[in-house]
Amino acid sequence: MPKTAEVDLHQSFLKCEAAHRLHALARYPYDLTSEGNLTPQRVEELRASSCGYLMLYGTERVTHEVMRDLFALAKEMHVFEKMRRMKEGEVVNYIQGFKSEERPALHMAARAFFGKPPKGKMAAEAVHLAKRELEKLKSFIEQIDREKRFDTLVSIGIGGSDLGPKAHYIALQPFAKEGRSVRFISNVDPDDAFETLRGLDLKRTLVVVISKSGTTLETRANEEFVRSLFTAEGVRPEGHFIAVTGESSPMDDPKRYLKVFYIWDWIGGRYSTTSMAGGVSLSFAFGFDLYLEFLRGAWEMDETVLQEELQHNLPLLGALLSVWNRSFLSYPTLALIPYSQALARYPAHIQQLEMESNGKHIDQMGRPISFPTAPIIWGEPGTNAQHSFFQMIHQGTDLIPLEFIGFKESQAKADHSFEGTTLQQKLLANLFAQAIALAKGEKEENPNRECAGNRPSHILLGNELTPRALGSLLSYFENKIAFEGFIWGINSFDQEGVQLGKHLASKVLDGFKGSRTFPLGDAYIKLLNKVP
Amino acid sequence: MPKTAEVDLHQSFLKCEAAHRLHALARYPYDLTSEGNLTPQRVEELRASSCGYLMLYGTERVTHEVMRDLFALAKEMHVFEKMRRMKEGEVVNYIQGFKSEERPALHMAARAFFGKPPKGKMAAEAVHLAKRELEKLKSFIEQIDREKRFDTLVSIGIGGSDLGPKAHYIALQPFAKEGRSVRFISNVDPDDAFETLRGLDLKRTLVVVISKSGTTLETRANEEFVRSLFTAEGVRPEGHFIAVTGESSPMDDPKRYLKVFYIWDWIGGRYSTTSMAGGVSLSFAFGFDLYLEFLRGAWEMDETVLQEELQHNLPLLGALLSVWNRSFLSYPTLALIPYSQALARYPAHIQQLEMESNGKHIDQMGRPISFPTAPIIWGEPGTNAQHSFFQMIHQGTDLIPLEFIGFKESQAKADHSFEGTTLQQKLLANLFAQAIALAKGEKEENPNRECAGNRPSHILLGNELTPRALGSLLSYFENKIAFEGFIWGINSFDQEGVQLGKHLASKVLDGFKGSRTFPLGDAYIKLLNKVP
Repeated sequence: MPKTAEVDLHQSFLKCEAAHRLHALARYPYDLTSEGNLTPQRVEELRASSCGYLMLYGTERVTHEVMRDLFALAKEMHVFEKMRRMKEGEVVNYIQGFKSEERPALHMAARAFFGKPPKGKMAAEAVHLAKRELEKLKSFIEQIDREKRFDTLVSIGIGGSDLGPKAHYIALQPFAKEGRSVRFISNVDPDDAFETLRGLDLKRTLVVVISKSGTTLETRANEEFVRSLFTAEGVRPEGHFIAVTGESSPMDDPKRYLKVFYIWDWIGGRYSTTSMAGGVSLSFAFGFDLYLEFLRGAWEMDETVLQEELQHNLPLLGALLSVWNRSFLSYPTLALIPYSQALARYPAHIQQLEMESNGKHIDQMGRPISFPTAPIIWGEPGTNAQHSFFQMIHQGTDLIPLEFIGFKESQAKADHSFEGTTLQQKLLANLFAQAIALAKGEKEENPNRECAGNRPSHILLGNELTPRALGSLLSYFENKIAFEGFIWGINSFDQEGVQLGKHLASKVLDGFKGSRTFPLGDAYIKLLNKVP
Repeated sequence: MPKTAEVDLHQSFLKCEAAHRLHALARYPYDLTSEGNLTPQRVEELRASSCGYLMLYGTERVTHEVMRDLFALAKEMHVFEKMRRMKEGEVVNYIQGFKSEERPALHMAARAFFGKPPKGKMAAEAVHLAKRELEKLKSFIEQIDREKRFDTLVSIGIGGSDLGPKAHYIALQPFAKEGRSVRFISNVDPDDAFETLRGLDLKRTLVVVISKSGTTLETRANEEFVRSLFTAEGVRPEGHFIAVTGESSPMDDPKRYLKVFYIWDWIGGRYSTTSMAGGVSLSFAFGFDLYLEFLRGAWEMDETVLQEELQHNLPLLGALLSVWNRSFLSYPTLALIPYSQALARYPAHIQQLEMESNGKHIDQMGRPISFPTAPIIWGEPGTNAQHSFFQMIHQGTDLIPLEFIGFKESQAKADHSFEGTTLQQKLLANLFAQAIALAKGEKEENPNRECAGNRPSHILLGNELTPRALGSLLSYFENKIAFEGFIWGINSFDQEGVQLGKHLASKVLDGFKGSRTFPLGDAYIKLLNKVP
């Protein structure tokens, strides 16, 4: 249960005065196609910056008035108070009056040891525990370096124990330690584990199994399958498996694992990249020091979230733009397009972060929600995406807002000049050109060439995708998504909607075992014989 | 220009009588949550099959009446006549009365040599040319096998020259020839090429460059970059590069390439996986015979598309369900969820195929469209997706229809029994359970546990993902998407919307070269200095 408070933390989104004004403003959103509306001055003026990033949002359909009202809406919904409570470890994962998880959401504590100790007893305790695991990790990685027994780490986990670690592992490839690599097994599809292990020297392979509860079906099944494959290859699994799990979970078993690292129920799976769920694979691949730099970057962005000046609070600014596009302009999706091949799997991670957090149908008082919440997040890297689905973004019947990410410099610094410009310059030119083309559109006599424009976007522009910059980027998204949830008045930290599917899957599985007590499930099992 | 015809090929979608009836029916779509509505009988009855696949659509919000009217709509839009014309090589890529590409769309010709020669002079000629390239490919692959000079193929291409080949390469991993692998470079981001080449023995690396026009910016720049990296490593690029391009394009140059394979302007990039664009990498990795099996599977599904019995025409059935969900129930997206890790990149390929083909704002007469066309396609494999964004699909404020794909058997046949069932059974149980849970939902006293249901889906169920089954799957999607375009009355074969962005990118690039004549572009370039 939340502490009682002077402010009304359960203010309803639609009852905010600013929401009324914004609904009126949304009837005539800023027209980016009108002569004189999208100018170099506007592009230059509508910007904000912090932690190495510049946010350029001149190509969003906003005016100063809209931005003022969005900020007023955030204040009416007490976002700073909610954020403060989250950071300090109060219970923010709850539904008032109904049984729910009743937990804090303390993922920021996992990187809060760079500065002053956080306020709040729970947060301070969380920082203490996180540091303890970090120190365990540091000596474990030193031992790995010393013993030189392992080249490859196989990570077994699903959802937050897979998407975040994998997306960040891919993002930092040029920083990988010589001869070290990580592979990921997530799907219960047996081909996933089998293909992932193919060609590996299992004698030189370390396996980390990640499950907070220690009971995740896919992860346990994959662990057993992988252990059996080790045995089949004549490699005894003892001495090759470590675990990341909750203290005293069924997996907290030093007889079964070389080492057990802890995670806690106050860090949700999708927010766990900066906990040991991500820490083991990232520090195995890149070294402990680079992993610390990554955490530092996340902490630096965390430090901006209570900042009331929007110019320096990118997560809040991002959330305001998202709420405008989603709840007032009613765009159902957001395309996340990193102009950076290193971020190829970032959209998949942010897809989970946003949709599992904010894809909710009730508010924190348990009241049904009558306005659109989380957008569907999807996307692929640019310029690839330009040659794939951008046709539809330019000329489709629906409007699709975009969030672009780009960097001044490449990671590897290897480049080539071709026809007078480098590849990196071509990459950036395409990024900027798309923002302009989507916003302004083009009138044409041939209707097949006409682009209506008014496709809103903004650009998050960094210097270079270093571990530190990647940490800041992660924190940007985590906090942006939390701010959205605070504005919508929902609980961004549970996922009760997935229970029904789990429950029915276990009933269908009973059918596979021969017990036919679930007629609908049994009908599907019988239909397997009708596949031609 | 199309041939004159007795039927009105330019019938307007909204003026169809069936469209009026369907709009009325869409006001009260079939309620899957109502007691007695989703029964084992319904699940068993609403099915269709061909080419090794069973389509189960009992969990869509359709009735027999809806299906009848959807079929009537397809007939009013003359889909069979349009499909016949496409297969026979008539010009289907046009906008009546306006300058446009004026081409046939003959991707089916690339695999039409298994049966009787196609009707239509153009189609017969296309089959002849496709066979000629196939024979060239066969002897080239034999030479590769004989000489044993190359282990790795690096494929440079973007859009259709990347997504399709890569998605299908990933899908068939267990069939890869010992010691052969393919890597893909697509993005103009210099880190893409640099990272992709890392660790490769360039002496044993063959490079295929794919661009129909021979002028694709990203592909040319990457080719030059890769050639420079070969040179830097002391490997002379001569003797390592082959090309896939149009006859007499700038890349059709035997001095520059060991071998040049041809593609033609009557196969669109996104439809080019069964041409040499996909053929080179797939037969390098899996052998020519397996590639032929893949083509055979595609041809087999192609053979069903003029079949008027919906029970045996899966592409048309899929298209009708898609049009119902998109244009009548107004769902803006479709989540494509393969319960098969091998199909991890299939959603990205189908995303391009659908959105670039049908993301259009005018019909084939150049008239503006006032109804929603292509859905946004997005997705990730199950069960992974269940641990990521399924929370929102079950409980979000928006309805998201789903297309599931699953297989009875795994590819590798390696499996493990855990708690009484195999991993493959667990995978299938989850697939079936999700279809049921999403459709039926669940009433609960705790609103946070309640699932409203009526989330429509269908399942495409195959035996095993073999090369042949994969070919049929590809043809299913290609033809489904073409049928949708025929029903909507649009041209699914051009992509004029991407021109504006290309044009502006070249203007921004001029700015990077120092010529400041595009103030908006220059504003962005200047802002690069403001990145903190």
